Amino acid sequence: MGETDRLLDVIRGRNAKTVGLQFPVGLRTKAVELAQEIETRAHVACLVSADPSFGACDVADMPVDLIVHLGHAPMPHLRYNRVFFYDLPGPPITSMAFVDAAEPLLPRRVGLLTTTQFRHWLAEIKEHLERKGHVVRIGEPDRRVAYAGQLLGCDYHTATVVEKDVDGYLYIGTGDFHPLGVAILVDKPVIIADPERGTARDLKEVRDHVLRQRHAAIARAQGARVFGIIVSKKIGQARMEMAVELKSLAEKHGKQANLFLMDLVAPDLLQGYRVDAWVNTACPRIAIEDILQYNQPMLTPQEFEIVLGERPWEGYVFDEIRA
Amino acid sequence: MGETDRLLDVIRGRNAKTVGLQFPVGLRTKAVELAQEIETRAHVACLVSADPSFGACDVADMPVDLIVHLGHAPMPHLRYNRVFFYDLPGPPITSMAFVDAAEPLLPRRVGLLTTTQFRHWLAEIKEHLERKGHVVRIGEPDRRVAYAGQLLGCDYHTATVVEKDVDGYLYIGTGDFHPLGVAILVDKPVIIADPERGTARDLKEVRDHVLRQRHAAIARAQGARVFGIIVSKKIGQARMEMAVELKSLAEKHGKQANLFLMDLVAPDLLQGYRVDAWVNTACPRIAIEDILQYNQPMLTPQEFEIVLGERPWEGYVFDEIRA
Repeated sequence: MGETDRLLDVIRGRNAKTVGLQFPVGLRTKAVELAQEIETRAHVACLVSADPSFGACDVADMPVDLIVHLGHAPMPHLRYNRVFFYDLPGPPITSMAFVDAAEPLLPRRVGLLTTTQFRHWLAEIKEHLERKGHVVRIGEPDRRVAYAGQLLGCDYHTATVVEKDVDGYLYIGTGDFHPLGVAILVDKPVIIADPERGTARDLKEVRDHVLRQRHAAIARAQGARVFGIIVSKKIGQARMEMAVELKSLAEKHGKQANLFLMDLVAPDLLQGYRVDAWVNTACPRIAIEDILQYNQPMLTPQEFEIVLGERPWEGYVFDEIRA
Repeated sequence: MGETDRLLDVIRGRNAKTVGLQFPVGLRTKAVELAQEIETRAHVACLVSADPSFGACDVADMPVDLIVHLGHAPMPHLRYNRVFFYDLPGPPITSMAFVDAAEPLLPRRVGLLTTTQFRHWLAEIKEHLERKGHVVRIGEPDRRVAYAGQLLGCDYHTATVVEKDVDGYLYIGTGDFHPLGVAILVDKPVIIADPERGTARDLKEVRDHVLRQRHAAIARAQGARVFGIIVSKKIGQARMEMAVELKSLAEKHGKQANLFLMDLVAPDLLQGYRVDAWVNTACPRIAIEDILQYNQPMLTPQEFEIVLGERPWEGYVFDEIRA
């Protein structure tokens, strides 16, 4: 692993004696090997963090001189303490077949979007599409994302910033969640080009299905009397101020609302509490992806405002965590 | 809830403006009601902690003036920060039927054991057994437990301290785990009198079953090359020094060992890491109760010493967390 040379330089340069390593789920297979290599070559003590990490919003504190966080790009607006982000780009692009599969579905003017692991492909894909006659835009980042064209599940700035210059988007990636918010927020087609499957798909059906689920959750929560408002402990997901405002808003409308502070949000951790519905101010993904696993309706803050009558159904937007 | 008057006095007395509430799973049903009552009557802001809490070893920090921890007795040797333990005793004893069911299984000289929720029953049960001709001892606590006769899943002091004066034990409680360590540690019968079911049972079969499982785990780990040593972040479960010593011991025997730091220990959080076996220095319960859910053998520190040949099989003991 010659790749780790740069990391070893950083560890030596910071004179760290103890190093913590944080991995997203997909990189767990490399954890033991990397810890062992660092210990052997840099003569430091390594601690692997086995708390799950879902993003640069989710960097846990560790009792070490230096935390090495892998697989995510830092969020520029957050103040991290003793953290080095080691987000190696993935392998180079080897085939444009998945882009060519998407191309017939694209309008002429297209915005290019992706996640951090494919960020280094965008320039090449842009050129490829331009040769086929497209006008391609890659949105500049804001204070919450590191790279041009980078989407987070809670930040669609690189899409909206080019909205008026494009007629649709091409998302380079494997899952639905990151581009889903764009498809709901912007009334333009969002096409996924999936480099792992080598195929392309329109997000429209998934978008419509999720919107029906969201409206069902809002309808179910209409009769709720007691709301549990979830506040995250995670550095980039903590929205206490918003939670306190939502509690006041609920009480203004004659509803009871209680605040729940937690780190990991998971269905079994919320079982037993006597609330009629949850309002999630932590990662927006929680309310959307795991909805069927929760006994009570799980609402985003904006959906809760609809339930309370403070926002019209027509004003439906996906939750974003703004800096 | 007149019971909460004492709690409201404490909150007012400490001049707290923000209060965090921590509940064990069994008390979650009371969380919303209590939070609402405190907010209304004491005019403070309440935050319910929805991170799971498994004991007084597991008191999470919260950004509040006062943490109220319910359902567990404090561990005297730990230094808690801004924590008030509100461990109300349960309802009074209403029937001795479950004790009478156990009585024929008991030797003449018996040690009485229980958990914090039934601690106030012990004096009455002692008298009841004495009237039937038994000699009853209730062991004084050490620095890790609060009450006489109190067992933790990781501390059997109140049993061993009376060991030479008794020929067996009566445990008042509902589960197997707390008295299991006693049954393994001390070669004397342990009888459970279960107040919820109103029945009694001898722990011998469960003890033998668990011992066979433990020996199987030790056997499976014999061929392991890479060990993951789990260190807890929880205030009363953190044994970093022991973990570092076990790592050295492994390396002395030509094995690789890497340290994993985590808060909640759960099977899905350990999936994907390339270790051949786990060594758990967190709550001893994890290795015993959930063994079938982990892909790799999950060993206690003492079992790991057996695997390394540093301790004989005959020296098998249950893991305890000593102060």
